[in-house]
Amino acid sequence: MGSAATRFCDLGESALIARIARRAGSVSSRDWGLRIGDDAALLRPKAGDEIALSTDAQIEGTHFRFGRESARTIGRRALAVNLSDLAAMGARPVGALLSLAAPASAKVADLDAVIDGFVAEGARHGCPLVGGNLARADQWVLDVTVVGRCRRGRALRRRGARPGDGLYVTGTLGGAALARLSADARGGRLTRVPTPRLEAGQALARLPGVRACLDVSDGLATDLAHLLEAEGVGAELEPDRLPAPAGLRRGCRALGLDPLAVQTQEGEDYELLFAYRSARSTDASPMLSRRLGLRVTRIGRVISTPGLQGLPGVAIGHHF
Amino acid sequence: MGSAATRFCDLGESALIARIARRAGSVSSRDWGLRIGDDAALLRPKAGDEIALSTDAQIEGTHFRFGRESARTIGRRALAVNLSDLAAMGARPVGALLSLAAPASAKVADLDAVIDGFVAEGARHGCPLVGGNLARADQWVLDVTVVGRCRRGRALRRRGARPGDGLYVTGTLGGAALARLSADARGGRLTRVPTPRLEAGQALARLPGVRACLDVSDGLATDLAHLLEAEGVGAELEPDRLPAPAGLRRGCRALGLDPLAVQTQEGEDYELLFAYRSARSTDASPMLSRRLGLRVTRIGRVISTPGLQGLPGVAIGHHF
Repeated sequence: MGSAATRFCDLGESALIARIARRAGSVSSRDWGLRIGDDAALLRPKAGDEIALSTDAQIEGTHFRFGRESARTIGRRALAVNLSDLAAMGARPVGALLSLAAPASAKVADLDAVIDGFVAEGARHGCPLVGGNLARADQWVLDVTVVGRCRRGRALRRRGARPGDGLYVTGTLGGAALARLSADARGGRLTRVPTPRLEAGQALARLPGVRACLDVSDGLATDLAHLLEAEGVGAELEPDRLPAPAGLRRGCRALGLDPLAVQTQEGEDYELLFAYRSARSTDASPMLSRRLGLRVTRIGRVISTPGLQGLPGVAIGHHF
Repeated sequence: MGSAATRFCDLGESALIARIARRAGSVSSRDWGLRIGDDAALLRPKAGDEIALSTDAQIEGTHFRFGRESARTIGRRALAVNLSDLAAMGARPVGALLSLAAPASAKVADLDAVIDGFVAEGARHGCPLVGGNLARADQWVLDVTVVGRCRRGRALRRRGARPGDGLYVTGTLGGAALARLSADARGGRLTRVPTPRLEAGQALARLPGVRACLDVSDGLATDLAHLLEAEGVGAELEPDRLPAPAGLRRGCRALGLDPLAVQTQEGEDYELLFAYRSARSTDASPMLSRRLGLRVTRIGRVISTPGLQGLPGVAIGHHF
């Protein structure tokens, strides 16, 4: 049912919701007493759980454009960036709600692909689509609320960094931004979807000495500022140590970009940034890399003087 | 800080979020381990709780227009219609997340008033603003996720209606639609905010014999169809019994509207519609009204033959 040309306005709201529910499937889960199709989804928490709730929107024109990336990639990314917030808390995903708005002229085939991408990304991370909403708007809006669980009192927070703590980051920085800027420059398709660092976040939540954590979504400079401001402290960064993916310098040179700016001011890597205090004030990267099963790099340390040292000329502040 | 002319693009995203957090206040609550300002809000469930999660968007142009109603009313309604979904489950509100999108040219004064309305409505119902998101879009989008709790296994659902059950509705039908249509006709302001029937829903969840429940948000005909289709049953309605607010007939006459169509096809009353089986198949309205502390009216009964009888000429189906 529904040719490639079928539009939202050709089907009723109920038919579209039924279509989404069908694609979401009936993942059996003891977590949920009730899912799509009622007035609310019903979560059954386990004893000792805290429930983490986070919401984030992906908006056509602001965050994505059909054509520039596939509808499936758009659906996948909408969930992935939300899961990254759960990763930053050390939470395990339980399910997601999707509040979707689109023009009446939107193609049903795009809806199908967005939902398929969303559901596929959820399946990778144990996060079924459990509810949502559908509304008419001038542009596509994918508003996602993710639900996760963590052991009571063990969630990672932004607060807690203390002078002397080492600052660490998972993975590499700059690769996602370079991919986007390259796609923009050559008019190519953007296919990259960030990997939410869920297992790493859960491992950090179990590790004594991890003091504060967030995901790098607005750029290292901005996000680090959030972490520092939460405690009124500062940081001394070592820019030479910022972990770069292979080919970053070459790629930046080709586009006439400053690699350091790409690494610190663009924020699509969704890596975890955290403060860690070890008994010995040495570089704990090797141990942390082993524990997290992922490259971890020490990029500087927390100091008592507010502000960011070691990143000259980098303006902090994400504009609306 | 911020004159009436200040726009979103004049302030940074962080400043806007700080502004929202300040207006949301710091309602002390043992339910929440963490609120606005981190990557996620942290809910501490109580033993024996199920957590109800529901999401609904109010979109500029589709659901509201600045000027036609005040920014404060827009904020209040965005939360109220979401709380109605919790009411329909018999859940008690615990908190809400607001994912807000707006144009860069949006007025900060409107943001303030929207948030104040949202927070005021939440204060009436014990539902603090605990988290959210801010993004840029071509139009305002207020995407709300409400979180509620109910006793495990006691939530009201859409399923469960059986032939012989009486069909009941709280309050009156048609008043909200008439107010909107009147405001449209005379170019007046729309000031009405629906009252989520939270206490009534919680009372229904405790009452044996209540079989299925939802809130009337798309119109009685459409919502009743949802309730019936969930069980493959039908209903015999008694249109003469539909509870009307004072002045509905007169108001409809003045606008040249059919009162029955206004009562059954327009859906902004957010009353509860439910199926109830009593030992004796009499009209249980007097008892239910006493229990719910609210007018309750028997409007028909569930029958085994699918379809809706007694509402000739009323087409079912909400269009996108």
